[in-house]
Amino acid sequence: MAQKPSIPKGTRDFSPIEMARRNYIFDTIKKSFRLFGYKQIETPAMENLSTLMGKYGEEGDKLLFKILNSGDFMKSVSDEDYAEKNLPRLTNKMCEKGLRYDLTVPFARFVVQHRNDLSLPFKRFQIQPVWRADRPQKGRYREFYQCDADVVGSDSLNNEIELLALIDKVFQDLGINITIKVNNRKILAGIAEVLNASDKIVDITVAIDKIDKIGIENVNAELVEKGLSEEAIEKLRPILELSGTNEEKLAVIKEILKDSAEGMKGIEEMEEVLGGIDALGHKCKIEADLSLARGLNYYTGTIIEVKAQDVEIGSITGGGRYDNLTGVFGMPGLSGVGISFGADRIYDVMNQLNLYPEEISESVRVMFVNFGKAEAQQCLKYVKALREAGVPAELYPDAVKLKKQMSRADEDHIPFVAIVGETELQDGTIMLKNMISGTQEKLTIDEVIMAVK
Amino acid sequence: MAQKPSIPKGTRDFSPIEMARRNYIFDTIKKSFRLFGYKQIETPAMENLSTLMGKYGEEGDKLLFKILNSGDFMKSVSDEDYAEKNLPRLTNKMCEKGLRYDLTVPFARFVVQHRNDLSLPFKRFQIQPVWRADRPQKGRYREFYQCDADVVGSDSLNNEIELLALIDKVFQDLGINITIKVNNRKILAGIAEVLNASDKIVDITVAIDKIDKIGIENVNAELVEKGLSEEAIEKLRPILELSGTNEEKLAVIKEILKDSAEGMKGIEEMEEVLGGIDALGHKCKIEADLSLARGLNYYTGTIIEVKAQDVEIGSITGGGRYDNLTGVFGMPGLSGVGISFGADRIYDVMNQLNLYPEEISESVRVMFVNFGKAEAQQCLKYVKALREAGVPAELYPDAVKLKKQMSRADEDHIPFVAIVGETELQDGTIMLKNMISGTQEKLTIDEVIMAVK
Repeated sequence: MAQKPSIPKGTRDFSPIEMARRNYIFDTIKKSFRLFGYKQIETPAMENLSTLMGKYGEEGDKLLFKILNSGDFMKSVSDEDYAEKNLPRLTNKMCEKGLRYDLTVPFARFVVQHRNDLSLPFKRFQIQPVWRADRPQKGRYREFYQCDADVVGSDSLNNEIELLALIDKVFQDLGINITIKVNNRKILAGIAEVLNASDKIVDITVAIDKIDKIGIENVNAELVEKGLSEEAIEKLRPILELSGTNEEKLAVIKEILKDSAEGMKGIEEMEEVLGGIDALGHKCKIEADLSLARGLNYYTGTIIEVKAQDVEIGSITGGGRYDNLTGVFGMPGLSGVGISFGADRIYDVMNQLNLYPEEISESVRVMFVNFGKAEAQQCLKYVKALREAGVPAELYPDAVKLKKQMSRADEDHIPFVAIVGETELQDGTIMLKNMISGTQEKLTIDEVIMAVK
Repeated sequence: MAQKPSIPKGTRDFSPIEMARRNYIFDTIKKSFRLFGYKQIETPAMENLSTLMGKYGEEGDKLLFKILNSGDFMKSVSDEDYAEKNLPRLTNKMCEKGLRYDLTVPFARFVVQHRNDLSLPFKRFQIQPVWRADRPQKGRYREFYQCDADVVGSDSLNNEIELLALIDKVFQDLGINITIKVNNRKILAGIAEVLNASDKIVDITVAIDKIDKIGIENVNAELVEKGLSEEAIEKLRPILELSGTNEEKLAVIKEILKDSAEGMKGIEEMEEVLGGIDALGHKCKIEADLSLARGLNYYTGTIIEVKAQDVEIGSITGGGRYDNLTGVFGMPGLSGVGISFGADRIYDVMNQLNLYPEEISESVRVMFVNFGKAEAQQCLKYVKALREAGVPAELYPDAVKLKKQMSRADEDHIPFVAIVGETELQDGTIMLKNMISGTQEKLTIDEVIMAVK
């Protein structure tokens, strides 16, 4: 029976033009990954659930796509299990595998599993899809690509400086104006410490983030509600009112944090990172920003977030330093730092600003019209010569009406159409039509190759 | 708790060197796909099970990886369902989605779903992983890549000629000597028809295939067993004994098939295809071979199979013409022809024959040694200059012992190491060491760029 075909919600097909655009973004990112010495790896789409479960919090466990065991998937399910209808337990008995949820956990698993074959520090990049059973909504998909670059096995802040240089280069190449925001978890921890509120590091960071939207009075009211003392709130004020250059901001924070060893360490780190990238030079804006709260539960040092300046959209790239990536897999003490380019949001930004170069297209340069068997046979030889010269070319396969062939060339935005009719067949020429200007010329194949290249 | 990490059986991690090799293969294939005018698409890893089920036979249905529904996957399972333990029924109630099994069914679904946006004939290529719950064994994986190129919406045999030219070019570029075997289902059907055994087309084809291995007497004995008449077996003899050039073979077959319209049509098609590719010229061997039995249940015309000449391995590429790809999705009458490059087997062949170009590597060209903060800051500027010149370069991130840094450069097969110590820092030079010859030279950054490019 005929079915009306569709795809699962939250997933997408990519058409040739979409692919051309996405390839442009991925290729641009990849080119810089390679220039910076990151090496590509790939891991399987399916990981053992024992690798994935418990790594993304309770909510994350629910958002994993689980694969039903092949064969008799009911064999471990007892009548009691069924009667109890405990979904996690049933899942555990029927499913051993799940789809990867991000590239970080598989990377950690990879590092530990292949530890004897890797030379540290190991710089890897990975560009693969991930899957999350999130509720689909605008800009949020159940299958999407991540583009990650990480260094493990090195504590040096040179890695952070290099990552900022990498971000600067990628977005410069793409033509997107960005601001990189830099924070450091140790500074946040220091602030919480000097306020005697070490357990409230997240609340304090969220408060700093809200200051522009709701004003200092409302922020302070919220902090009171969260249980922060009046004295602490007063001490926090200069941080909430932070402004000026990165140096000016750091000077204010330094004064407040002078009694927190961790806080001072964070400032030192940030000064080295910002000083390093400034010494190197950069096109983008780089801003110390204490309101960055991303990944506070796993980042341990530098935190990085990238915003597009000309489009209202969330962060388009992010990352940071984590101190114990592989501990959960039995390999403690390995520090790492990495970033993840948000390919789908970058794609949205590129589309909105129309930043693709003109020549991006999956179309051939030349389409030969098909007038019948003898002409087609000759055209295939010309097509072959063009391809050997590196020019994508094709013959319209069927000898149908000229109009139909031309309209297909038009729809596909093919820039040149080549016509070999009876006359051209006899005198060994090609009528080359420029589809943009509408002009046409009688040329030899060598001249065609020159003309379309 | 620490876990010993592993990946699901039948799946693989790809290390940087493996990725470099696989990318070389994929990039070579992609380059030709584009030169030939095929346009890339991608489809989601997950398809609705209604799209996938029933398309690969009963065995195929079992080999699909099914995704457990998110949320309450038990909500449609009744006590009766549970008691009955009918696995397909339970699967149907707990799972709506599965992982794609090949690229052909998703492509058919894509064509029908996007029919209004496609201009026909539509030439697409697609390179993505597929998943099958097959028993893993040497060279057979549960996750593997397919590289498909198909044209739909054209009956012209020019498409077949072009596909043969494409195969010839790809393997020439890869450096693999191949034989392309070409068959046509209509010829097989014609043979079965003139033998009055149209239902035995598969048995007859299998018999033709076995002739070299078991000899004509054993083949004939098997055919008797399958119910073929003595008369039919006698008539088949010249086909079993077929030899010589393609022309000689076709002459023999033509004589036998003269009373079968379908058979004669098949011969005519094969003559046009073989004549067309011969007129165009090709490096590989192309052979008419009636023993090709691949895809007999869906191919309707030309059947193509590629064997490596220098390695004992199954077919490394295959394809053919199918007349009703999209019928099952409600769009009848669309003819197509396509091929699929077997990336994993090609990878095995390339590895066995060591056919990769020397320069394939994920390594940077130059690694700068790190002697401490001041030197590192200068080195990062040099690294930046190299990258701007298109040369992958890096700074060793940590100022650890020289020996450790050098041994990492060695392990990673980095061809040049750059040393900037106190002296070089003062006089603005770089000591460049060639890791292969062992020689070293004191150079400026511009000279380094020239030297390593």
